Amino acid sequence: MDYSSVMSVACPAHIFNDWFSCPGVISMVNAGAMSGSGNLMDFLDEPFPDVGTYEDFHTIDWLREKSRDTDRHRKITSKSKESIWEFIKSLLDAWSGWVVMLLIGLLAGTLAGVIDLAVDWMTDLKEGVCLSAFWYSHEQCCWTSNETTFEDRDKCPLWQKWSELLVNQSEGASAYILNYLMYILWALLFAFLAVSLVRVFAPYACGSGIPEIKTILSGFIIRGYLGKWTLLIKTVTLVLVVSSGLSLGKEGPLVHVACCCGNFFSSLFSKYSKNEGKRREVLSAAAAAGVSVAFGAPIGGVLFSLEEVSYYFPLKTLWRSFFAALVAAFTLRSINPFGNSRLVLFYVEYHTPWYMAELFPFILLGVFGGLWGTLFIRCNIAWCRRRKTTRLGKYPVLEVIVVTAITAIIAYPNPYTRQSTSELISELFNDCGALESSQLCDYINDPNMTRPVDDIPDRPAGVGVYTAMWQLALALIFKIVVTIFTFGMKIPSGLFIPSMAVGAIAGRMVGIGVEQLAYHHHDWIIFRNWCRPGADCVTPGLYAMVGAAACLGGVTRMTVSLVVIMFELTGGLEYIVPLMAAAVTSKWVADAFGKEGIYEAHIHLNGYPFLDVKDEFTHRTLATDVMRPRRGEPPLSVLTQDSMTVEDVETLIKETDYNGFPVVVSRDSERLIGFAQRRELILAIKNARQRQEGIVSNSIMYFTEEPPELPANSPHPLKLRRILNLSPFTVTDHTPMETVVDIFRKLGLRQCLVTRSGRLLGIITKKDVLRHMAQMANQDPESIMFN
Amino acid sequence: MDYSSVMSVACPAHIFNDWFSCPGVISMVNAGAMSGSGNLMDFLDEPFPDVGTYEDFHTIDWLREKSRDTDRHRKITSKSKESIWEFIKSLLDAWSGWVVMLLIGLLAGTLAGVIDLAVDWMTDLKEGVCLSAFWYSHEQCCWTSNETTFEDRDKCPLWQKWSELLVNQSEGASAYILNYLMYILWALLFAFLAVSLVRVFAPYACGSGIPEIKTILSGFIIRGYLGKWTLLIKTVTLVLVVSSGLSLGKEGPLVHVACCCGNFFSSLFSKYSKNEGKRREVLSAAAAAGVSVAFGAPIGGVLFSLEEVSYYFPLKTLWRSFFAALVAAFTLRSINPFGNSRLVLFYVEYHTPWYMAELFPFILLGVFGGLWGTLFIRCNIAWCRRRKTTRLGKYPVLEVIVVTAITAIIAYPNPYTRQSTSELISELFNDCGALESSQLCDYINDPNMTRPVDDIPDRPAGVGVYTAMWQLALALIFKIVVTIFTFGMKIPSGLFIPSMAVGAIAGRMVGIGVEQLAYHHHDWIIFRNWCRPGADCVTPGLYAMVGAAACLGGVTRMTVSLVVIMFELTGGLEYIVPLMAAAVTSKWVADAFGKEGIYEAHIHLNGYPFLDVKDEFTHRTLATDVMRPRRGEPPLSVLTQDSMTVEDVETLIKETDYNGFPVVVSRDSERLIGFAQRRELILAIKNARQRQEGIVSNSIMYFTEEPPELPANSPHPLKLRRILNLSPFTVTDHTPMETVVDIFRKLGLRQCLVTRSGRLLGIITKKDVLRHMAQMANQDPESIMFN
Repeated sequence: MDYSSVMSVACPAHIFNDWFSCPGVISMVNAGAMSGSGNLMDFLDEPFPDVGTYEDFHTIDWLREKSRDTDRHRKITSKSKESIWEFIKSLLDAWSGWVVMLLIGLLAGTLAGVIDLAVDWMTDLKEGVCLSAFWYSHEQCCWTSNETTFEDRDKCPLWQKWSELLVNQSEGASAYILNYLMYILWALLFAFLAVSLVRVFAPYACGSGIPEIKTILSGFIIRGYLGKWTLLIKTVTLVLVVSSGLSLGKEGPLVHVACCCGNFFSSLFSKYSKNEGKRREVLSAAAAAGVSVAFGAPIGGVLFSLEEVSYYFPLKTLWRSFFAALVAAFTLRSINPFGNSRLVLFYVEYHTPWYMAELFPFILLGVFGGLWGTLFIRCNIAWCRRRKTTRLGKYPVLEVIVVTAITAIIAYPNPYTRQSTSELISELFNDCGALESSQLCDYINDPNMTRPVDDIPDRPAGVGVYTAMWQLALALIFKIVVTIFTFGMKIPSGLFIPSMAVGAIAGRMVGIGVEQLAYHHHDWIIFRNWCRPGADCVTPGLYAMVGAAACLGGVTRMTVSLVVIMFELTGGLEYIVPLMAAAVTSKWVADAFGKEGIYEAHIHLNGYPFLDVKDEFTHRTLATDVMRPRRGEPPLSVLTQDSMTVEDVETLIKETDYNGFPVVVSRDSERLIGFAQRRELILAIKNARQRQEGIVSNSIMYFTEEPPELPANSPHPLKLRRILNLSPFTVTDHTPMETVVDIFRKLGLRQCLVTRSGRLLGIITKKDVLRHMAQMANQDPESIMFN
Repeated sequence: MDYSSVMSVACPAHIFNDWFSCPGVISMVNAGAMSGSGNLMDFLDEPFPDVGTYEDFHTIDWLREKSRDTDRHRKITSKSKESIWEFIKSLLDAWSGWVVMLLIGLLAGTLAGVIDLAVDWMTDLKEGVCLSAFWYSHEQCCWTSNETTFEDRDKCPLWQKWSELLVNQSEGASAYILNYLMYILWALLFAFLAVSLVRVFAPYACGSGIPEIKTILSGFIIRGYLGKWTLLIKTVTLVLVVSSGLSLGKEGPLVHVACCCGNFFSSLFSKYSKNEGKRREVLSAAAAAGVSVAFGAPIGGVLFSLEEVSYYFPLKTLWRSFFAALVAAFTLRSINPFGNSRLVLFYVEYHTPWYMAELFPFILLGVFGGLWGTLFIRCNIAWCRRRKTTRLGKYPVLEVIVVTAITAIIAYPNPYTRQSTSELISELFNDCGALESSQLCDYINDPNMTRPVDDIPDRPAGVGVYTAMWQLALALIFKIVVTIFTFGMKIPSGLFIPSMAVGAIAGRMVGIGVEQLAYHHHDWIIFRNWCRPGADCVTPGLYAMVGAAACLGGVTRMTVSLVVIMFELTGGLEYIVPLMAAAVTSKWVADAFGKEGIYEAHIHLNGYPFLDVKDEFTHRTLATDVMRPRRGEPPLSVLTQDSMTVEDVETLIKETDYNGFPVVVSRDSERLIGFAQRRELILAIKNARQRQEGIVSNSIMYFTEEPPELPANSPHPLKLRRILNLSPFTVTDHTPMETVVDIFRKLGLRQCLVTRSGRLLGIITKKDVLRHMAQMANQDPESIMFN
C-alpha cells in the first residue's frame, strides 16, 4: 500500500491511523441485540476481553463510548428489577458520580491546602528558621511569640535569619551576603530536587499540564499522564519549585493535580474506569475543582473548565463540576492555610468606586496586557522550539539549575522580587488603608487630618512610594524576561501567577501615576468633574488588579472565566466593568497578532491531535479534497462481504496498519455495507482457527447473514457478521469540509467514510482533518502529529 | 401517497413535513462555487429571491444557516481587500455583534427600570395617592415630605389613602371598607386593561414566554412572537398585571421582553436578520440580559441562558451574553428604581454563619420545594389542559376578571398578601436588625442589653411574631392555590416570584420555629454545640431564602443558575452550601415524581417540536424502525436523475406536500445522489418555463452534469443540477436511534435519509424523531404537534 507508507513516514503509523469502529455495533454485540441471528457458526458469543479499551496515544470514539454507557445503564436498570440487592447496586451506581465529585473535592482541597502551607514554610526557610519549631513559617512563628505591638509583628525573637543563627549578626554587609548566599543555596537545592524527582519518577509531571489536559479531554489517550505517580511527584515538586523562587505559579499545575485526583477516583468506579467518555466528564469537573482552589473561585472554576479546557460538557457535568468546585473550596477554607478564612492570598475589598474617566487607563492596561501576551507567547514558543530541536533540550537539569541561580541572584536584592509572587500580587492589589505599613503606602499625610480607617483621601506620594516605583520597574523587566525562559522547563510550572504579577506591577505603577496626577492637577478638565481635593478618587490597587486581568487574558485568551475569577477575588459587581474592558481590549490586541493562546500554541508545538472547538473553518474545500486515497494513490484497502479467504485477510492485516477496513459488496460495485475493526478481525480469526473446526487458510470469510454458495469441496466458511459495524458514518464526496469538520467536532468521530451514490470512495480520519486544517492555515501539515 | 395523508391527518401537514435542503448546496449556489460547470442551459445564475427564508411554524436547518453565514463572512472578507470603504464595512460587520449586545443591554435595562418604577407607583395607587404629584409612589411621596423621624417614615401628610381623600377618614370600619373596595376596583381595572390589550393587540404577549423562547431557540419559527407589538404590549400589560396584585411575577416575562429587544435590534443588521441561526445567538444573549435585570444577577443570567433556554450556545455567545447582561444590569442600576443602588428589592446581607446542624431543616425545605414543584406542575398542567379542551378557554377576559377579583378580595385583609409579592419576599429574606420595625421582628428584648446594630442574640418571640406566623400560614395556603390558577391565563405572568414567595413563607416559618426551639432548649443535644445562650445562632431570613431557592428549583428544575442567582442576591460564598443542599434535594424529590419542569411541561402541553438536550434516549430501536415509509406503506416519493419529465415532477409536487424529494439514479437501483427542495424545484420550473426556450411539459429534467442521450425529436431537456443538494445527510438502516437522536440534536438537522449499501430506503424527519421518542416514553405520539 503506497499511501500507507507515506503516512508511516509522516508519523508513527500505529498512533494515528485510527480507523476504528463506528458507533453501534459494539454495543449491539455486547447487548446481544442480534442474538436472533446466532447460529452454530456464530461462535463469538462472549464479548472479546479487550473490547472497549484503547491503545496509548489513540483517539477515542465519543459516540461509541456514549452508546456503551447507555448499554451499561440499560443493563443495570433492567437488572435492578430482579432483586433488592440489584436495586441497591443500581442506586449506588446512580450515586457514584456524586461520590466521585465529593472525593475529588475533598482531596483537591486538601492537597491545595497542604501545598499552600508547605510553600509558605519553605519560602520562609530560604530566609531563616523558627527556633521554637523549625516547621513553622515566619508568620506562624511570630504568632506564638509574645510581641504583640503592631509594628513589630514581623520581628520576633523566635524567628532568626540565617545570619543571626549562623554568625549571630542581623545587620551589616556580611550578614546580608550570608543571607543572600543561603537564599541562593536553598533555591538551588529545591530546584535540583524538583527537576531530579520529575526526571526520575514522573516525566509527565512537568509543565502546567493544561495543554495536555485539553488534549486528553478532547478524546486523546495519554497513559500515565494523570496517574498516581504523576499526582504524587507533581504535588511534591510543585511545592519545591514554587518555594525555590522561580518565576512560576502553582495555579495551572493545581488543575493537573486535581485532574490526577479525578482520574484516581474514577478508576475506583467501573462506571468511569471502563468508559473513556464518562471518565472525561469526571476530569472536566476535576479541572473546575482545581481552578476553584487555585483562585478561591468556584464559579470561575466551572466556567474555566467550560470555556477553556473541556470538550464535551453536558449540563449534568456543569452541575457536578459546581459541586466538586464547592467541596474543594470549602475543604481548603477549613484548612485555612493563610489564617484569614480566605482561599487565596490576594483577596481584596475596595472601598472607593471607579469613575468613567478611569476607563482610559484601564483600556491602556488592556493594550499592555495584549502586547505582553503576544510577546510572551512568541518568545516562549521560539525558546521552547529551540529547546526541542537543539542540544539545549538534552540538559534539562542544568537548565533548571542555571535559571534558578540567575533568578535567585537577580531577585534577592529587590524586595519585590525577593518575596513570593503571590505575596507580591497581594501587596500590589491592596488598597492603602490607614494601618498599612508597606513602602507602597508611604504617602505624606495631612497632619491636621484625623485618620479614618477607610476612605482616605488622595495624598501626595512620599519617598517610599518613589523608591517602590523604580524597584517595581526593575521587577517588571526582570519578571518579563525570566518568565519567558522559565515556562516550559522540565519542572511543574504555571504561568497564571507570573502573568498576573507582570500585569499587577504595570497596573500599580499606572495607578500611582494617575493618582499623583489627579492629586497635583485637580483643576485639569479630565479630573475636575470627579476628583475634588480631599476626595479619595483613585485606587492604585484596582489598577493592579485590572492590569493582572489584562495580562492573564493576553496570555491565555480567557474571557468570561477570567472576569468571573477576578470578580470572585474582589467580591463586588462594581469592578466588573473595568475588568471586562481590560480583558476585552487585551484579547482583541493579542488576537490581532495571532489567534492562539499559550495553551493552543503549546498544543501545536507538541503536535497533539487537538480539534479546537473555537477555530472556525471557513475554507471552501470538499470532502473529496481531503479523503484518502488521493488521486494517483492506490485504491483503498477494503474487505469484500463474501469473497475473501482467511489468508487474504491475514495478508491484508499484515501488510497494512490501519485500525479498520471498510467492507464492500464486491470490488466491482464497491457498495459499502459496513466497517470492521482490525483488532476484532485479528481476535475473531485467531479464535476461529483455535476453536472452530474446518477453518483453514482458504476458508471464505463472509459478513452477510447467509453463507455464500460455495463449490461442494470448499472448506468451511467463517461467519464474521458479529464484528461488522453496520452503521459506519458516511458523507458524500461533495460535502463541504466545513460541515465535515463540524461533524467531527460535535460527534467526536474518529473517522468517516466518503461515498458517492452509495459507492465507497475513500476515508477521512481525524488526523486527515487536522492535517487539512493546518494546510489551509498555511502551516506545515506534518506538524500535526504527536512527538 | 398514502402515508402523506396519514401525516396530514395527524397534523397540519404544511407545518411539519419539513423535508428541507441539507447543508451545503445552497451556499454553493449562492457563492457560485460550481460556476465552472455553468453552461447555456444552466440559467439559474442569480440566487432565488426567497432562498434562506423559512415559513412560519417551520424548523430551521442549523447546519445550513451556519454554512450560509460562513459564505457571507467569506464574501465580506474577500471584498474587504478591494477598497477602503469595503474594509470599513467589514469592520462594521465584525463589530455589529457587540453593538447589538450593547443596544439590547441598554434597552432591556431601561425597560426593566421603567417597569419597576411604574409597578411601584401603580401598586401604591391601589391604596392611595400622593397629593404633591399623583405620579409619586408612596415612598417617593414621603421622601419629599418633611417628616424625617424614623418611625413616621411611612406616614406623611402628602400621602393620602383613598378613604382620607374621598371621605376624609383614615381609621374606622367604613374607611377600611372604602379602601378595600378601591383596592379591588383598581385591581380589576388593571387586570381588565391588561387582558384586553393582550387580546386585541398581541395575543403572543401572554404567559411567561419561556417555553416558547426555548422552542424558538431550538430552531422553530413563530413569526411575531418576538415582534415589536409583542414587546410594547407585553411591557405595558406586565406593569398592569403585576400592579393588579395577581399572584404572578415580572421575572419570566422580562426574559421575553429582553428577547423581543434582541429580535428588534437583530433585525437592524443584515448579518442577523437574514440568518435564523445567527439571530438565535443574539436571542440567547438577550435572554441572559433579561434574567440579569430580573434578578440583578448577570452571571446567573448567563448561566440561566446556557442551562435553561439556549440550544446552540457557542463560546462566542457566552462572552457576548455576559456583555449584554452586564450592560443591562448597569443600565438598570443607573436608573436605580428602588433608590438603594441595588438591582432588586430583595438583596440581603447576613451577618451570622450557618451551622452544620441546620442542614437538616434546609434539606427539609428542599423536600418541601420538590413537593411543591410536583404539585404545582401537575395541577397547573391539568388546569391548563382543561382550559384548552373545555369551554373555559373561550372566556379569557372573564377568567382573568374572576381570578383577579378573588385574589383581591382574599388578599386585602392579610398584610402579607396585600403588599406586593416582591416586598413580601424582601421582608421575609430580611435579617432582623436592631432598627427593624416589622411585625416579623417583634421579639422581646432583654432590657439589660444595649442594642448593637448587628449580631443580635436570639430572643424569644413577641406577640407580633406569633401573629405573623398564622398570617403567613394563611398567606402560604392562599399563594399555593391561587398561583396554580393564575399561571397560564391570557396575561403576561411569570412564576419565579410566586414560587419564591411560597418557599420564602415556608422557610421563614421553619426558621422562626428553629430559632425559638433553639432559644428555649439550649440544652438539647442538637443545639448544645453551636447555640449557647446569648448567641445569634439562627437567621430566619436565611431559611426564607433557602426555601425560596428550593421552591423555585422544584418548579423550574434549574440547578447551577438557580444557586448562582441566589448567590448574587446574598453576595456571600458562605451561603452557597445551604442553597445548594436545598436545590439538589428539591430537584431530586421533584424528579422522582416526573422529570419535566414547568417549562418542558408547557412545551409538551402546547405540542411544540422541541428536542430537549437534557432528555436521554436509551431505547434500543434502530433507524429502520423509525424511518418512513413504514412497512406496508407505498414507497418514498423520489425523483430520478435523468428520466422524469417536467410534467411528472409537477404532478408529484401537486400530489404531495413534502418539503423536498430525494433524487436517485433510477427507480430500479435506488442509489441516492442528492436531495432537491420543493420550494426550489417549483421556482426553477417556473423560471425555466418562462425564460428558457423549448421547455415544455414533456421535457426531460436531469440532475447530472451531462444531459442524457435522448431520441432526436425529443424536446429540449432541463438541467437542474444547481438546485441539487449533493451532500444530503445519510445514516444506514442499522444505525441505533440513540445515535440518530444525538445527530439530530447536535447538528440541528431537519431530516436525514436512510440507506443500506447505498440504496435509499427511507427518510427520518425531526418530527419522526420526536414522535418516536414520545412513543417510547409511552406518550401519545400524536401529541407532538403544534396546536
